[in-house]
Amino acid sequence: MKKLISFQIVSTMRKFDLSQLSHPLCEVFLWVKFKDKMDILNTIPLIRDYFLSLQQELCQQFSEEENHSHSIFIEDPWQRSEGGGGITRILSNGEVIEKGGVNFSHVFGSQLPPSATLLRPQLQNSAFQALGVSVVIHPRNPYVPTAHANLRFFSAHPKNQDPIWWFGGGFDLTPYFPFEEDCIFWHKTAKAGCDPFGKDVYPKFKQACDDYFFIKHRNEPRGIGGLFFDDLNEWSFETCFAFVKAMGDHFIQAYRPIIQKRKDIPYTEHDRAFQRYRRGRYVEFNLIYDRGTLFGLQSGGRTESILMSLPPHVDWHYNGHHNGHPAFIEQEQRLVEEFLNPRHWV
Amino acid sequence: MKKLISFQIVSTMRKFDLSQLSHPLCEVFLWVKFKDKMDILNTIPLIRDYFLSLQQELCQQFSEEENHSHSIFIEDPWQRSEGGGGITRILSNGEVIEKGGVNFSHVFGSQLPPSATLLRPQLQNSAFQALGVSVVIHPRNPYVPTAHANLRFFSAHPKNQDPIWWFGGGFDLTPYFPFEEDCIFWHKTAKAGCDPFGKDVYPKFKQACDDYFFIKHRNEPRGIGGLFFDDLNEWSFETCFAFVKAMGDHFIQAYRPIIQKRKDIPYTEHDRAFQRYRRGRYVEFNLIYDRGTLFGLQSGGRTESILMSLPPHVDWHYNGHHNGHPAFIEQEQRLVEEFLNPRHWV
Repeated sequence: MKKLISFQIVSTMRKFDLSQLSHPLCEVFLWVKFKDKMDILNTIPLIRDYFLSLQQELCQQFSEEENHSHSIFIEDPWQRSEGGGGITRILSNGEVIEKGGVNFSHVFGSQLPPSATLLRPQLQNSAFQALGVSVVIHPRNPYVPTAHANLRFFSAHPKNQDPIWWFGGGFDLTPYFPFEEDCIFWHKTAKAGCDPFGKDVYPKFKQACDDYFFIKHRNEPRGIGGLFFDDLNEWSFETCFAFVKAMGDHFIQAYRPIIQKRKDIPYTEHDRAFQRYRRGRYVEFNLIYDRGTLFGLQSGGRTESILMSLPPHVDWHYNGHHNGHPAFIEQEQRLVEEFLNPRHWV
Repeated sequence: MKKLISFQIVSTMRKFDLSQLSHPLCEVFLWVKFKDKMDILNTIPLIRDYFLSLQQELCQQFSEEENHSHSIFIEDPWQRSEGGGGITRILSNGEVIEKGGVNFSHVFGSQLPPSATLLRPQLQNSAFQALGVSVVIHPRNPYVPTAHANLRFFSAHPKNQDPIWWFGGGFDLTPYFPFEEDCIFWHKTAKAGCDPFGKDVYPKFKQACDDYFFIKHRNEPRGIGGLFFDDLNEWSFETCFAFVKAMGDHFIQAYRPIIQKRKDIPYTEHDRAFQRYRRGRYVEFNLIYDRGTLFGLQSGGRTESILMSLPPHVDWHYNGHHNGHPAFIEQEQRLVEEFLNPRHWV
């Protein structure tokens, strides 16, 4: 009976602007609708529009940090024979951004790839929808940190059962020559994005980020962290989606001021060499541990779009030596001990 | 009864030089000994001595290709708290060899690491011995191919059961600017190393090499192959060990003449950029697929010794572009189609 009522109310509500639904009762019914009636496919155009507008916005804002008009994000649309496709946008060899990628993808199909159902056998033979935006920015100046953001939505539609949906994502920062004030600013902005959704949100997702971006064989974190969340569906769909939008907004608010502040710092060839050397760690994490990268490559994703995350120039020196000297060891130790090892930044 | 006799004979034989055992009956008994009585621990000093002398020999021969006296393999011994250790030898920034590693290791313990017993649960709680030599040479000149060789021995000693032992290894070549005659020479030399052990040996291990060094997400082989073998114990221990020695000898016989022939070819900055770009594939294979690398990192191996295989300078360009142009696409296609895709070289 309750379900029927909620369904009728929600059906009527479709004609209203969802944002006007401020009455608590409406929120409850909306929650019931999405949890129980699961008309989740109706939300996909909304998510798609937001992800596409975020891609556009990020490319625009990053381009504005370049001084040369030729430093633009090229657009490379692609299709997937099994359903869907994406738009890869890449900035190569910019003055400020040495290599940057802002990828959108929306893939779907009548059957989840086997690698996606290993841990969820009940979803075998489910139709699915997967949408995402992935961002990796490798600046040229070693004093500007590398940044990564990802936002994704997933829904599985098993036959004769309610669909399952969730959001995932986050953003994290990988400095080579860190400034304490930048790290604090990065985490403060991340926290500001989380706080409207509950005081426990930032600490929880900050911790998840520290746990996830850890390079086991080096016994060190990839960077200074940020936020990481997955399987997010315990709030209403609306609230989850609003949180994801807050993440998109706060990522650029956290990163762009750091680019502006550091992009003109003079640097030496030794600084560049240290950056290329530490970028090796980034490659190691992405190719050995990153679930998105491995899942993408194993499930026949578009290799060039997935591996846009890899830095443009990378060095591996045995034992932190450079030109026959242990040039990087002390510097690296300081970086790891004082900045990368998890800290309470706010 | 048969076992008892063989055991007594072998016990007596211990006082003889094993290489003098040419009588067919002795061979049979030796086989029985190693298969049934499994006094395999006695062989470990022999294997260890050979691997150490091979390490020495390879470093010597590679150093002779350098023109400068400062280009030498530094020696970095290390110990493993759980038992054993190794000697890592690295040549950095040589004139001919931009980065090279020739590693020896001998590790042992009272219990196999869990990752080693996943597929062999019967070996849980087994003591083990593992010895190996690993070689990766990244030459500076893009016209000299990258080469890799590995030889390894493994024995597990389950309680109240006979031990299990096997050899593994092989060698393979990764050219950036290949010459047909070099590829033929490489494979002819590999075949010459195999032929005394049976006419089916080269084709079988050549095929295994093509199968193993394949980069799935790129749908391309890592190089032009060579030989790959694992779980080798179907011959007598003596024959298996002789084969492994032949592999060590033929690796340097196959590679050094190619270094000599190509190390002085003039090259452009574009050639170097292509080499750095293609080295990215080498990194992708090693970090995503190579069992030795992943096993080593997961089981708490010595990271710097394992990752000595990674090239010194590596580039990733989106879609084979370089400086805004699709500079590498055609060249790469030719390399893959004409050389890397498996061919019958001999």
